[in-house]
Amino acid sequence: MPMTDQEEKARRYELLKAQLAMAKHQDKSVVLVVAGHAATYKSLLVNQLNHWLENRQTEVHALAPSEEDRLRPYWWRYWRRLPARGRLGVFIHGWYGDALFARVEHRIQAGAFYDRLKEINAFETMLANEGVVVIKVWLDIDAAQQAKRLHEMKADPAQAWQINERHWQRHAQHSAIQYHAQTLLEETHLPHAPWHCIVSESPGKQLRDITVLLQNALTQPTTLPTQPELNRAQTNAPSLNRSKNDDEKLSKSDYLAALNLAQARIAYNHRRCLERGIPVVLAFEGHDAAGKGGSIHRVTSALDARFYRVHSIVAPSDEERLHPWLWRFWRRLPRDGRVTIFDRTWYGRVLVERVEGLAEEQDWQRAYREINYFEAQLLTHGAVVGKFFLAISKEKQLQRFKARANTPHKQHKLNDEDWRNRKNWDEYQCAINDMLMHTHTPGAPWHLINTDEKRCARLAVLNHVNRLLANRLENGS
Amino acid sequence: MPMTDQEEKARRYELLKAQLAMAKHQDKSVVLVVAGHAATYKSLLVNQLNHWLENRQTEVHALAPSEEDRLRPYWWRYWRRLPARGRLGVFIHGWYGDALFARVEHRIQAGAFYDRLKEINAFETMLANEGVVVIKVWLDIDAAQQAKRLHEMKADPAQAWQINERHWQRHAQHSAIQYHAQTLLEETHLPHAPWHCIVSESPGKQLRDITVLLQNALTQPTTLPTQPELNRAQTNAPSLNRSKNDDEKLSKSDYLAALNLAQARIAYNHRRCLERGIPVVLAFEGHDAAGKGGSIHRVTSALDARFYRVHSIVAPSDEERLHPWLWRFWRRLPRDGRVTIFDRTWYGRVLVERVEGLAEEQDWQRAYREINYFEAQLLTHGAVVGKFFLAISKEKQLQRFKARANTPHKQHKLNDEDWRNRKNWDEYQCAINDMLMHTHTPGAPWHLINTDEKRCARLAVLNHVNRLLANRLENGS
Repeated sequence: MPMTDQEEKARRYELLKAQLAMAKHQDKSVVLVVAGHAATYKSLLVNQLNHWLENRQTEVHALAPSEEDRLRPYWWRYWRRLPARGRLGVFIHGWYGDALFARVEHRIQAGAFYDRLKEINAFETMLANEGVVVIKVWLDIDAAQQAKRLHEMKADPAQAWQINERHWQRHAQHSAIQYHAQTLLEETHLPHAPWHCIVSESPGKQLRDITVLLQNALTQPTTLPTQPELNRAQTNAPSLNRSKNDDEKLSKSDYLAALNLAQARIAYNHRRCLERGIPVVLAFEGHDAAGKGGSIHRVTSALDARFYRVHSIVAPSDEERLHPWLWRFWRRLPRDGRVTIFDRTWYGRVLVERVEGLAEEQDWQRAYREINYFEAQLLTHGAVVGKFFLAISKEKQLQRFKARANTPHKQHKLNDEDWRNRKNWDEYQCAINDMLMHTHTPGAPWHLINTDEKRCARLAVLNHVNRLLANRLENGS
Repeated sequence: MPMTDQEEKARRYELLKAQLAMAKHQDKSVVLVVAGHAATYKSLLVNQLNHWLENRQTEVHALAPSEEDRLRPYWWRYWRRLPARGRLGVFIHGWYGDALFARVEHRIQAGAFYDRLKEINAFETMLANEGVVVIKVWLDIDAAQQAKRLHEMKADPAQAWQINERHWQRHAQHSAIQYHAQTLLEETHLPHAPWHCIVSESPGKQLRDITVLLQNALTQPTTLPTQPELNRAQTNAPSLNRSKNDDEKLSKSDYLAALNLAQARIAYNHRRCLERGIPVVLAFEGHDAAGKGGSIHRVTSALDARFYRVHSIVAPSDEERLHPWLWRFWRRLPRDGRVTIFDRTWYGRVLVERVEGLAEEQDWQRAYREINYFEAQLLTHGAVVGKFFLAISKEKQLQRFKARANTPHKQHKLNDEDWRNRKNWDEYQCAINDMLMHTHTPGAPWHLINTDEKRCARLAVLNHVNRLLANRLENGS
């Protein structure tokens, strides 16, 4: 039964009002995934919806991965297309099409399919926690009806252009799609991101069903994921308390000789990574004045400027604040073969944001798990992930602060924030140890380096980068 | 307790005798997989064994995949290194190292790990069925003992060179390796390819344990895998009985115009496959005189000669007879981006070998499953797999045979075998239908093409190749 004109107008007005309210308050965003069989009026529906809604606040994505997408970790393509708070993103097939059709076409096997579904669940749970309302619609149709509709469209000059080889291929695969979609729907039906199955009968009815879902999403409070318990702590994680400094002083000439050698090896190893398309992500955290900048400089001196980039992470921009918190790190990931160095990182979430009270406890608590997922996705893509924590003793820090204050060309490196952080020394020590414990994963372990002896520390960083690159080059394909 | 000299001599003599008997009879081959933790005397053991055994009949493989390996479906690297019957192949880490360390280093997730173990089981079951005795040894050591041994070796000038970064990395990963190896050992412990766990205590004891295993393998009858039930038949498989010829005759000019267009599209599509590194495997089967050669010629005319190869499959060579039956197809697979066309294929196993009684029933029965696995591995690697069966009616075949016999430049195409095959027409029809039913998989379906009208048939082949290439180019990364 189609809508009456009056019904339609009223519904349309309500929906628009709700959308504009969301745009104004910027309190959440909505992600609408429209998936399902071929010939279920998906594009018609999305066009109609786009026509009803405020265009400037809506984005439609029907993903054909670009070269840029292919050269980055898999999820990058979705992160970069996430709507900012206040906006609506419509994703045709969303992150489901890839996994489903790869399985249907036997490009992945059963186990890898489950891995993908598990990643999807982690992604959507993160979205829900970050104030994104996820609505998922599966459009169903049986094979006979699908054939009938395809033939009708093919026969209609106004619609025939819409039907291509792909539609007939999907029709031939109908039973395989139905079979694997069943698994997919069951495994990814989350309380905070449920599936809505709609049998495709008429465009009008589908539009009505989906506007109801949208209307509810825009106006009603949303289900939040229950917090999963914290990941198991790693038993062999490094810890500040256990770290001691037994480095001996190194003479300048010995240091320079070793430095030269280590940098030459980095240059050579990275050239091989470039040839093999292996991306490298190096994350540097550490106490103020522990020498992050100096260590990073020693790494980059060995690299070709065309192939690396250093990102200093400061407070998020306005645009970044409107996205899930990891968004600003995803957007900075290197393409295959390149090196990206983070001077301060995503670990700010469980360090400065925790200590300064910039994040709620429940939010930084779940960040450990989100970070581990993030890094696992880099590893799955084949990236080298190096994590360095440059530590310093409290006394040594004071010494360096004073030296900075008294050296004209170093004064700019010292600011009020450094002194404030120093006041919170004990809270930071505690946050650092928790971080090391919860995120020292086998695939992406921490390297805790004591920097009281600067030369030894720098060499330790360089040697470790070399070890990571060499190991990755020898392993895997 | 080390062996006495006399014990050792006796053992060594017995082993050598057994090996030489195997080399003489060529009735089986032996694959010895030596896997396990670092610092468990693996290389020492293999060197010692190599010294005891007849060198010319033994091959040792410690796999670091080459560029050639990387550019082919995963299992190619092991197929090409399989020992011929009569020979012994020693594989350090075998096909286990890759899967295990990829999992330990988080390059694959839990589901994909199980997929790999399942593939390993299928591979070893195939080996056992083909007369290869598979012996698998896991060398165990605890972390403390490992550290002790590494330090001792490092301190010994005669051994220090053996210890590199990799050993320390494996030591750091000891608990993760232990954890995932447990799963691996449980899931791949098959009756016909069991694991033998040996705690690494001394090189002498390990050598003794392994020579006993080898001796048994060489002299005792082996466990054969129980036959798994036949794969489920595909419900929508094409069938000769259902295929009918309603193609109309096509005028020569219409045909040539369509041919030109289809070939131009093939050239274009394959160029894109080449850029993306997508390999293409096209398999042609069909009745004699159905026009396989002509169809293949129309495909290759559209391709760049540098990038394709046509293999006409005839009776296996001596060397091929000494390997598992699929070996001769694995060795002919294209590298990434290239096209390989098989004029007659691995389906000979369930067609001519079945009808002519060249394979035992149990052997061609299991071939359906082995073929489906083989093709699934090509698909998993991202290859395009096209399978064409060119059919002809019995009357039309006779007509073409007579035409060939009467045309001087076609006489060479007709031989006694063609007439003999024609006598077995009904048996072949039955074998063909079974083949279509059991191997028409969703990822690699059959394309049954009636060739009574040659021009239509050729266009059907070309158009289908284009469809396969275009679909693959649009899908997946």
